[in-house]
Amino acid sequence: MTVRAAVAGASGYAGGELLRLLLAHPEVEIGVLTGQSSAGQRLGALQPHLTPLAEREVRPTTADALGGHDVVFLALPHGRSAAVAEQLGGDTLVVDCGADFRLADATDWARFYGSPHAGTWPYGLPELPGARAALAGSRRIAVPGCYPTAVLLALFPAYAAQLAEPEAVVVAASGASGAGKAPRADLLGSEVMGSMRPYGVGGGHRHTPEMVQNLSAVARRRVAVSFTPTLAPMPRGILATCSAAARPGVGAHDVRAAYEKALDAEPFVRLLPEGQWPTTAAVYGSNTAQIQVALDPTVGRIIAISAIDNLTKGTAGGAVQSMNAALGLPEGLGLSTIGVAP
Amino acid sequence: MTVRAAVAGASGYAGGELLRLLLAHPEVEIGVLTGQSSAGQRLGALQPHLTPLAEREVRPTTADALGGHDVVFLALPHGRSAAVAEQLGGDTLVVDCGADFRLADATDWARFYGSPHAGTWPYGLPELPGARAALAGSRRIAVPGCYPTAVLLALFPAYAAQLAEPEAVVVAASGASGAGKAPRADLLGSEVMGSMRPYGVGGGHRHTPEMVQNLSAVARRRVAVSFTPTLAPMPRGILATCSAAARPGVGAHDVRAAYEKALDAEPFVRLLPEGQWPTTAAVYGSNTAQIQVALDPTVGRIIAISAIDNLTKGTAGGAVQSMNAALGLPEGLGLSTIGVAP
Amino acid sequence: MTVRAAVAGASGYAGGELLRLLLAHPEVEIGVLTGQSSAGQRLGALQPHLTPLAEREVRPTTADALGGHDVVFLALPHGRSAAVAEQLGGDTLVVDCGADFRLADATDWARFYGSPHAGTWPYGLPELPGARAALAGSRRIAVPGCYPTAVLLALFPAYAAQLAEPEAVVVAASGASGAGKAPRADLLGSEVMGSMRPYGVGGGHRHTPEMVQNLSAVARRRVAVSFTPTLAPMPRGILATCSAAARPGVGAHDVRAAYEKALDAEPFVRLLPEGQWPTTAAVYGSNTAQIQVALDPTVGRIIAISAIDNLTKGTAGGAVQSMNAALGLPEGLGLSTIGVAP
Amino acid sequence: MTVRAAVAGASGYAGGELLRLLLAHPEVEIGVLTGQSSAGQRLGALQPHLTPLAEREVRPTTADALGGHDVVFLALPHGRSAAVAEQLGGDTLVVDCGADFRLADATDWARFYGSPHAGTWPYGLPELPGARAALAGSRRIAVPGCYPTAVLLALFPAYAAQLAEPEAVVVAASGASGAGKAPRADLLGSEVMGSMRPYGVGGGHRHTPEMVQNLSAVARRRVAVSFTPTLAPMPRGILATCSAAARPGVGAHDVRAAYEKALDAEPFVRLLPEGQWPTTAAVYGSNTAQIQVALDPTVGRIIAISAIDNLTKGTAGGAVQSMNAALGLPEGLGLSTIGVAP
Repeated sequence: MTVRAAVAGASGYAGGELLRLLLAHPEVEIGVLTGQSSAGQRLGALQPHLTPLAEREVRPTTADALGGHDVVFLALPHGRSAAVAEQLGGDTLVVDCGADFRLADATDWARFYGSPHAGTWPYGLPELPGARAALAGSRRIAVPGCYPTAVLLALFPAYAAQLAEPEAVVVAASGASGAGKAPRADLLGSEVMGSMRPYGVGGGHRHTPEMVQNLSAVARRRVAVSFTPTLAPMPRGILATCSAAARPGVGAHDVRAAYEKALDAEPFVRLLPEGQWPTTAAVYGSNTAQIQVALDPTVGRIIAISAIDNLTKGTAGGAVQSMNAALGLPEGLGLSTIGVAP
Repeated sequence: MTVRAAVAGASGYAGGELLRLLLAHPEVEIGVLTGQSSAGQRLGALQPHLTPLAEREVRPTTADALGGHDVVFLALPHGRSAAVAEQLGGDTLVVDCGADFRLADATDWARFYGSPHAGTWPYGLPELPGARAALAGSRRIAVPGCYPTAVLLALFPAYAAQLAEPEAVVVAASGASGAGKAPRADLLGSEVMGSMRPYGVGGGHRHTPEMVQNLSAVARRRVAVSFTPTLAPMPRGILATCSAAARPGVGAHDVRAAYEKALDAEPFVRLLPEGQWPTTAAVYGSNTAQIQVALDPTVGRIIAISAIDNLTKGTAGGAVQSMNAALGLPEGLGLSTIGVAP
Repeated sequence: MTVRAAVAGASGYAGGELLRLLLAHPEVEIGVLTGQSSAGQRLGALQPHLTPLAEREVRPTTADALGGHDVVFLALPHGRSAAVAEQLGGDTLVVDCGADFRLADATDWARFYGSPHAGTWPYGLPELPGARAALAGSRRIAVPGCYPTAVLLALFPAYAAQLAEPEAVVVAASGASGAGKAPRADLLGSEVMGSMRPYGVGGGHRHTPEMVQNLSAVARRRVAVSFTPTLAPMPRGILATCSAAARPGVGAHDVRAAYEKALDAEPFVRLLPEGQWPTTAAVYGSNTAQIQVALDPTVGRIIAISAIDNLTKGTAGGAVQSMNAALGLPEGLGLSTIGVAP
Repeated sequence: MTVRAAVAGASGYAGGELLRLLLAHPEVEIGVLTGQSSAGQRLGALQPHLTPLAEREVRPTTADALGGHDVVFLALPHGRSAAVAEQLGGDTLVVDCGADFRLADATDWARFYGSPHAGTWPYGLPELPGARAALAGSRRIAVPGCYPTAVLLALFPAYAAQLAEPEAVVVAASGASGAGKAPRADLLGSEVMGSMRPYGVGGGHRHTPEMVQNLSAVARRRVAVSFTPTLAPMPRGILATCSAAARPGVGAHDVRAAYEKALDAEPFVRLLPEGQWPTTAAVYGSNTAQIQVALDPTVGRIIAISAIDNLTKGTAGGAVQSMNAALGLPEGLGLSTIGVAP
């Protein structure tokens, strides 16, 4: 089976990573590439690392250009996907890398994004309980945010096994590509290099309700999340340090066992051997999430840490993995578990 | 008054930073510089940024070499300071940048450091309640660890005002110089650049008991600390993201007022205007700690974040500030509040 | 003597560095700060490292605002300085950090900058033969470009002593702050980190005629320069690798002697001991230029390498040093030779 | 055909990159992995990015362990390969990533490496004139050095077409992985980040004679090379800025035509469209060399710039490409032209 795939938003970071992965996918043929301000340019000038596509021209993002493909990946600014998706037939698999269809609660959506709520699509994190079943055969996929991917993979085993109290504290560091490719003075290399800084502190980051929604579903009760994102001086990668109080009677062995049970069969999650901790360098460019967990006996907290590549497992890799699941292809097709290190 | 100062451990990062600051101190004359493996070399080959001291020769670290100075700074590996300090007269101001005299509890010391407990000296963080009085006139100073400096400055106002529950969660990112200059494969540039990674997770880091001891003293009850340090791809800087549940009835205004009261008069702590968050770049090379605090209303947690330069305010700057306090000099003499940015 | 100084362009990188240095200058009082798009904002939001000036408001750049100061520093986009300078009295010392008054040849100016030629002012590189005399008492100073500063300091001793053939090859790496603070997609942290790239290749960089003009003046014949700038993944610093064929009969001893003669008395140039090579880290934030030179016997070329901080010695430090020279103050007043490392 | 491949030196950077590429090679089965100090450890602790090999144990490097494979890759310190190769049968394809068999001149070898000369093997840079023929069917391959790979690809077209005078000036910047994984204080992250520095200046770098040998062979007369390597603050990548005087009468069109002729058919060299310059980020993790060339009309020099990943095209990728050539497999099998960016 050969799948013809279009990418809308081909000149940005998510679009570039989608193309990098799709080029290596044995069942995908890359169709139309579209962009906004980049329309009319050769891709080689915009994404010089995508050698085989250098001569491709970027076309304007229209339903017309995107029509006639088996799969359409949308890597658009938030709020733009619904209008495009509506014009694509119900047979087309639409994979939205934006936030538009992630949140079930319209009030949450309005509060954090400000535009009308578009709806909810199956959530593209196959590792979550029930997610694979929802993805199979679906023609619409909402790819998770990069931070939620890292945080959910680190914490869902603890909540699925009812080991943790329902208040999690998360501090995560992300590489600068998570902020996108639109020019901003505070994202200049001179500002980012040699510096760590927080943003969206105090519950204000848009990924917070997405974490709450999905952890609560796993835990079958509301889980509160204190989330502080920080910008780290690196191009890619998320390191999420997550913790929650262990419920009474929970021991280190229970924690380890729950994580092994939840993660050992997952092809793209690697629970590290005890004592070894994740590093973002090890997953650079790969679809692997590295996870480690410990119980701090002094404070009685479960500490779970994950490392992912925000553009791969956190965006484009998760999108391709979910596409595979939706289309009935082997879930790992075209995806690598191997990082580019050092 | 001219103070003659010796530095033991002049070839390391802490020693180099001490010398950088002492060179700018109007009342200090730099005396003997000592080292271990570097003895016999010119400082210019070891610390090429210290131009005015380039021709100075490093001498072996002996009590003999260090004797005859008004102040002796010890930047030695943990466990070595007591033996040197004993041989220096009681009139000499000994400023220990190591951990040897920081912990009051011998059991904590033994558990985290493994060597015999040497005792406790006045703690060189003048901003803590009572610390200035203890430093004035003292001839022995225990300089705080770099992480404790960042964390205590971020959290002590909340605990001094009894606003927070006694369990803090801290995730801090440090630049690589915090790990010192001794060669290690995991600290090579190739390993550090482009990567974030945790270490000492689950309560194992040696700075944990130091935070617990000092926060507990401020709060007048035991404060537990869940501390996760991470290594960030930058040479200098600590960003500490600290949080604790707000006690019942505490509002955002109470929090702001407590921080203003505790910090506004401090020359080396800058509580930022509301809405502006700390960045390590802004304090690069300076003795300033930038602080911001917020109350996350959804989860009811106080989030306090600090940024310091681990080598300046976190080590050598704190040492010089405490020396000034001990000698009765203006506390800010020779120290800058201005970072080197971008 | 207290000098009242205004800074036009206070929100950019050059302006910020000027203020960082002026804050440490014992004879300077900082007057009005002006900006374009930043007018009306507090400086603390724009330059958070300049703690003592955090509450200062940026005013619009007008001759009116800048009038009434002893010194006015212009850190404006190229082509804007002449109009401002004209409106400032002849008694005011105007120090232009832009290119407007650097080039003597109107054709060169037109070819590389495209706007009308404004004239030529005394060149703010006191180390060049004759430059100090021209600066003394002057009320107009053209601060050199950052690359020319690095390249001229590395090469002028060879040409002053007639040791080198008149064709130099220069490849220089600069930190990203050299490109300024205006947002550009190709200067985003994600693009800069982990990457080296050339630009302005083949003689197209605007600093080329400035190098040619000044090396030719020193050599007393036309010196051609093949100049390739590259962007390096660091915030600050220039490393300039310069070479030229040695003239017949020139030996290693002649080269060393010429550099010692030209540089040994210079307070802000450090010719390193033989065998030690410059590093940009050693001059971070300092006004020092580190220089080393060697004669490659196999190819018969003199290799001279310099490291400077592009914002300090390469811009704001050179400006302050030249201001001191013009005003008859000690040339090093308020300037440090000590880098911030590691 | 399935090829069984062993890797000696599996815990280092070259060994890790070899394994990363071999894991993606459809005709290779990874056999024994050996190391020196790492023997006995699991690979997952040493190379955490190589997820599929995490449980593999590293064995001591002996001929016994390496025997019985179709291909043996040697990623050993210089001077160790000959002894191992001797004990492997003549049927085994031995691919040496060290320098031992690169230099034809025993005097050069002795001068730069100091140990007895081992001989010369076919040179693993298939793009050089005549190299493919020498590799076909060979059972011994000397993989080029990383700098020579970058420099030869940039300059050989000019010399093959007799366009350039026989003296080249090369300044190259390399990421820190080029210096290997053995702990050294000057390669610590704190020393490397934020800094550029030269080393091996003045003709002293070991890769100089390798460049001279191969450029001279292409030019059919001796080509001198002034080579200055610099260490850049990035993990991977080489940017080589190369220039040489154009011979009389050579025009820009001649230069472009020569490069197109030499490079257009090469699958792993991309001559960029005119006006676009190479960047190391674009080739991160890929086997592509990006090349651009220009003629600076003012100084009459050909400027050729290349960007490669020092570990991929510069070491392990070149090794696999050459293995393919030697074994009669499609030369690009298992290798990617796509970089991991941003």
